[in-house]
Amino acid sequence: MLDLETVDHTRWLSQVDSDLSVVLVDHAHCEKKAASTAMSLLFAYIEQPEVVRAMRDIVEEELGHLLLVMNQLEKRGIPFRKLSPASYASRLAEIVRSGEPDRAVDRLLIGGLIEARSCERFTLLAERVQDRELSALYADLVASESRHHAAYFRLAKLYAPPDVVSRRAKELAVFEAGVLSASSDPPRMHS
Amino acid sequence: MLDLETVDHTRWLSQVDSDLSVVLVDHAHCEKKAASTAMSLLFAYIEQPEVVRAMRDIVEEELGHLLLVMNQLEKRGIPFRKLSPASYASRLAEIVRSGEPDRAVDRLLIGGLIEARSCERFTLLAERVQDRELSALYADLVASESRHHAAYFRLAKLYAPPDVVSRRAKELAVFEAGVLSASSDPPRMHS
Repeated sequence: MLDLETVDHTRWLSQVDSDLSVVLVDHAHCEKKAASTAMSLLFAYIEQPEVVRAMRDIVEEELGHLLLVMNQLEKRGIPFRKLSPASYASRLAEIVRSGEPDRAVDRLLIGGLIEARSCERFTLLAERVQDRELSALYADLVASESRHHAAYFRLAKLYAPPDVVSRRAKELAVFEAGVLSASSDPPRMHS
Repeated sequence: MLDLETVDHTRWLSQVDSDLSVVLVDHAHCEKKAASTAMSLLFAYIEQPEVVRAMRDIVEEELGHLLLVMNQLEKRGIPFRKLSPASYASRLAEIVRSGEPDRAVDRLLIGGLIEARSCERFTLLAERVQDRELSALYADLVASESRHHAAYFRLAKLYAPPDVVSRRAKELAVFEAGVLSASSDPPRMHS
């Protein structure tokens, strides 16, 4: 449903068990990055009203999530510090083709895959985490990440025919799963 | 009330009369820039929850305004094209001091002055422009620009004592009025 390839989450779940607070700090950074990516896409494809409207909604929601996560950090006395990011997003950015409309298709599909993977990981966190308030937060985020995934995939079809988008989405999904499976990063949302 | 120094708007108003459509295109770019500036401030001062919340609200409102202006462009068949920006914002950026907290004070005060000047110019546009729908849009924007100005000035006081902020605000206001008065730019929101 989420257009994802299967990966084994065993290593990541043990990282979550061992250092949830660093995952939470990284989560805040991911929400920030998600807002900023949506803003970049809004500006890059400003001639396309559908993209502008959808990205506006995503910017707003991601900034709202950022505040929710920052509240959780504050409540727990965890400082919102700088953190080396997982290699995940930068590895995915490397595969974006140059030249339009390929670039638009790839940026939107990769945006969608990241939202989809986050959606999957929030589902896992909601089940795994004992802290009820955090678990409820993760469960709440699942629905919006799933909507964002759908929006990104839908918008990609503005820039190429559906079958071309589907083929590329499959290629990118295989690459994304490979990146995540090969990760040797310390605990992060996408380690 | 808006902490602005007086400038003569005669030249600008005649530009508005002669080429309102280019002012409208520039207006869209200004809303985009305002959203992106607020997002940068949110990220730069993320350790300060008051800044984060206020900038989140401003990002949302400016993106909303961007859509309103884009609708007006679309209705009038005016393409949203690239445009050389007025020198106004880049001239103001030059005067920002390096080193914190001075940098925060200056970025916030300059943000506030730009909002204040926009507020003043929307008031003038609302009176000047014959097109009723546009005139109503300009009138609607006055209140939110005035709120943004107040928010920026209030936040600056998180980074320096009130009297220091007031003195710097006065200096920056004199500089801002000088930049605008000396403008030889083609028709823009801040020419």
